[in-house]
Amino acid sequence: MYDTQKIRADFPILGREVNGRPLVYLDNGASAQKPQVVIDAVTSGYSRDYANVHRGLHYLSTVSTEAYEAVRGKVARFLNAPSEDHIVFTTGTTEAINLVSYAWAVPRMVAGDEIVLSVMEHHANIVPWHFLRERQGVVLKWVEPEADGSLDPAKMLAAIGPRTRLVAVTHMSNVLGTKVDVAAICAGARARGVPVLVDGSQAAVHMPVDVQAIGCDFYAITGHKLYGPSGSGAIFIRPERMAEMRPFLGGGDMIREVAQGSVTYADPPMRFEAGTPGIVPQIGLGAALDYLMALGMDNIAAHEADLRDYAQSRLAGLNWLSVQGHAPGKGAIFSFTLEGAAHAHDISTVLDKRGIAVRAGTHCAMPLMTHLGLGATCRASFGLYNTRAEVDALVDALELCHDLFG
Amino acid sequence: MYDTQKIRADFPILGREVNGRPLVYLDNGASAQKPQVVIDAVTSGYSRDYANVHRGLHYLSTVSTEAYEAVRGKVARFLNAPSEDHIVFTTGTTEAINLVSYAWAVPRMVAGDEIVLSVMEHHANIVPWHFLRERQGVVLKWVEPEADGSLDPAKMLAAIGPRTRLVAVTHMSNVLGTKVDVAAICAGARARGVPVLVDGSQAAVHMPVDVQAIGCDFYAITGHKLYGPSGSGAIFIRPERMAEMRPFLGGGDMIREVAQGSVTYADPPMRFEAGTPGIVPQIGLGAALDYLMALGMDNIAAHEADLRDYAQSRLAGLNWLSVQGHAPGKGAIFSFTLEGAAHAHDISTVLDKRGIAVRAGTHCAMPLMTHLGLGATCRASFGLYNTRAEVDALVDALELCHDLFG
Repeated sequence: MYDTQKIRADFPILGREVNGRPLVYLDNGASAQKPQVVIDAVTSGYSRDYANVHRGLHYLSTVSTEAYEAVRGKVARFLNAPSEDHIVFTTGTTEAINLVSYAWAVPRMVAGDEIVLSVMEHHANIVPWHFLRERQGVVLKWVEPEADGSLDPAKMLAAIGPRTRLVAVTHMSNVLGTKVDVAAICAGARARGVPVLVDGSQAAVHMPVDVQAIGCDFYAITGHKLYGPSGSGAIFIRPERMAEMRPFLGGGDMIREVAQGSVTYADPPMRFEAGTPGIVPQIGLGAALDYLMALGMDNIAAHEADLRDYAQSRLAGLNWLSVQGHAPGKGAIFSFTLEGAAHAHDISTVLDKRGIAVRAGTHCAMPLMTHLGLGATCRASFGLYNTRAEVDALVDALELCHDLFG
Repeated sequence: MYDTQKIRADFPILGREVNGRPLVYLDNGASAQKPQVVIDAVTSGYSRDYANVHRGLHYLSTVSTEAYEAVRGKVARFLNAPSEDHIVFTTGTTEAINLVSYAWAVPRMVAGDEIVLSVMEHHANIVPWHFLRERQGVVLKWVEPEADGSLDPAKMLAAIGPRTRLVAVTHMSNVLGTKVDVAAICAGARARGVPVLVDGSQAAVHMPVDVQAIGCDFYAITGHKLYGPSGSGAIFIRPERMAEMRPFLGGGDMIREVAQGSVTYADPPMRFEAGTPGIVPQIGLGAALDYLMALGMDNIAAHEADLRDYAQSRLAGLNWLSVQGHAPGKGAIFSFTLEGAAHAHDISTVLDKRGIAVRAGTHCAMPLMTHLGLGATCRASFGLYNTRAEVDALVDALELCHDLFG
């Protein structure tokens, strides 16, 4: 039984007020709030058991290393990766995708090689590829979403040509909420010999992920969206791809031997983790994944599907509101504009006065905004602790906006 | 008045026992413990005021952004940088030096160009330059320390030739405790038109740092050694160098506009900070720097100089103990070996049984260990909360080791 009120009590920040109103936090797409178990893991990590990892033989270092390394297995279970050796720790999706770019793509791609990506990618899954375009003449091939915001796997596959070296695609649009059939894309790309990187930053928060069922080569997640700490994250990398990667960040922990004239590197995945890592943030990520797996990602998905349906029906009643993205089975993410003069930032400000946190802007997805012909939208993005009452609060506040600006 | 017992009470972990003995934490060179104000800043950052930064207009996002951005000014004050615009946030020194390598060095250096570095650098200030050697034929020019562990600035400057493009040098050896006269190196290198990167990972923990007085181009620090959270850090970059840098990590926050066929970048320092950063770790770093500046880095340096002198005199009484590094004015870092068969790891284990945490190994400084002709050492590294009584505990335990293994 999914008890939302009980769950809400796990998140201390949800008890606070903003501008004299109970906080209605609908900016989960930007970053999610943290349950007490995560905060406690972080506090305990600094108060009782802290030391650097992999470096010491003393008690605290051993305890810290064991707690830290245990998270690798939790990430593997969370993503159903075949082994924790396929998991590289990162500071988030941005570092993860840059790792793939610098360690795998840069040394393999030459001018005229192509990367296929969708127009609805987040900048984290665009800018690293623009670097390859700027620096070594790689060609970016863009695939547009359908009118309802869905992405046709066949169109992604049709964009693959003989020079395509990578498909980079999101599992869920952070603007439209569209779930992408990445399994179909991976199957088709694999048949054509093209690896696929999946940006799981949004999707992994909202539904079960099985990287083996998806068949991807890379799957990146970020801790702060998964109700975990800032600066935590990981990427699943298929072993064949990991073997093709050269080191990215250089420093301690990723080496085997360093001399004046030579250097050899540790085996993967350590080869790709340089320097003192985000020890306590990663331990906190482990606590967050435990929390999510205990709730059950299926249950979270069902709860959010209910919120999505309810929000869709309520927002559909506002005929002066234009919602972007109506793909079947989409996530509970609603980007919208108000007809008339109201700018997204003004709407966000009015909502904030009522304690409602939404994001206004381009959502790190400018190519999509250009495609939609929009300068900015407001985005209400729901999480595992949100309620139908919060949908009602949003609708009430939007009606106020309409009265003010309409 | 520097009240060590009062200071110790600020660090909750120092009240705990390890193996039935009070913790004697002498592994500060690997990572330092955290005062309650840092833990509280982290807890509060997640419990009360959390949201993503730079992205939202709502209350929590504004509060979070202000707290996060305020740290830039604290870092600038801590390093006496002329402006907070000269500070780039990183996840630590390793990422900072890799940033300099990828963003500044890689696009500027060609085969035959030279980087001058000392033999006592940490791997974080070696491996990124080995990448340039491996990948683009850059030549590494190594300068050895003197017999006492000091580094002669004249020898560093003498290694500069017409093809030298960078000097990369530590401000304090993490193995020997040697303080390096980086101001002299910077002055000489500047006269020859060669930029200098200073690895301040150890030094900034133990003494006041003034990047303007030093005259460096880059100065990297890491939060976890500065009594701050995992995954926090920063680098000072002289504006002329920052202007020469291309973007490193690509993603949100570091762009101005992204289109299908083009991308433009935010102004520095934001240009070099991609994606959702380590928001709460950086806020915790700010609390740590406030704590250090309130104690006064001069006072901390004086306290640690007393510990160094006391430890030097006590360890000098152990004629079966060989301490590496006797440079005048060195930091309170003691790497040592026991004559006879005892391996550093065995010593570390015996010490641990008495609650004493030291590090055994090569300390991420293999070229130095090779230079010293040592496979491994034990290292006792002191911090602001350590005491003369802890020096005594160390000496007692070493005498036990000598009895056991001697």
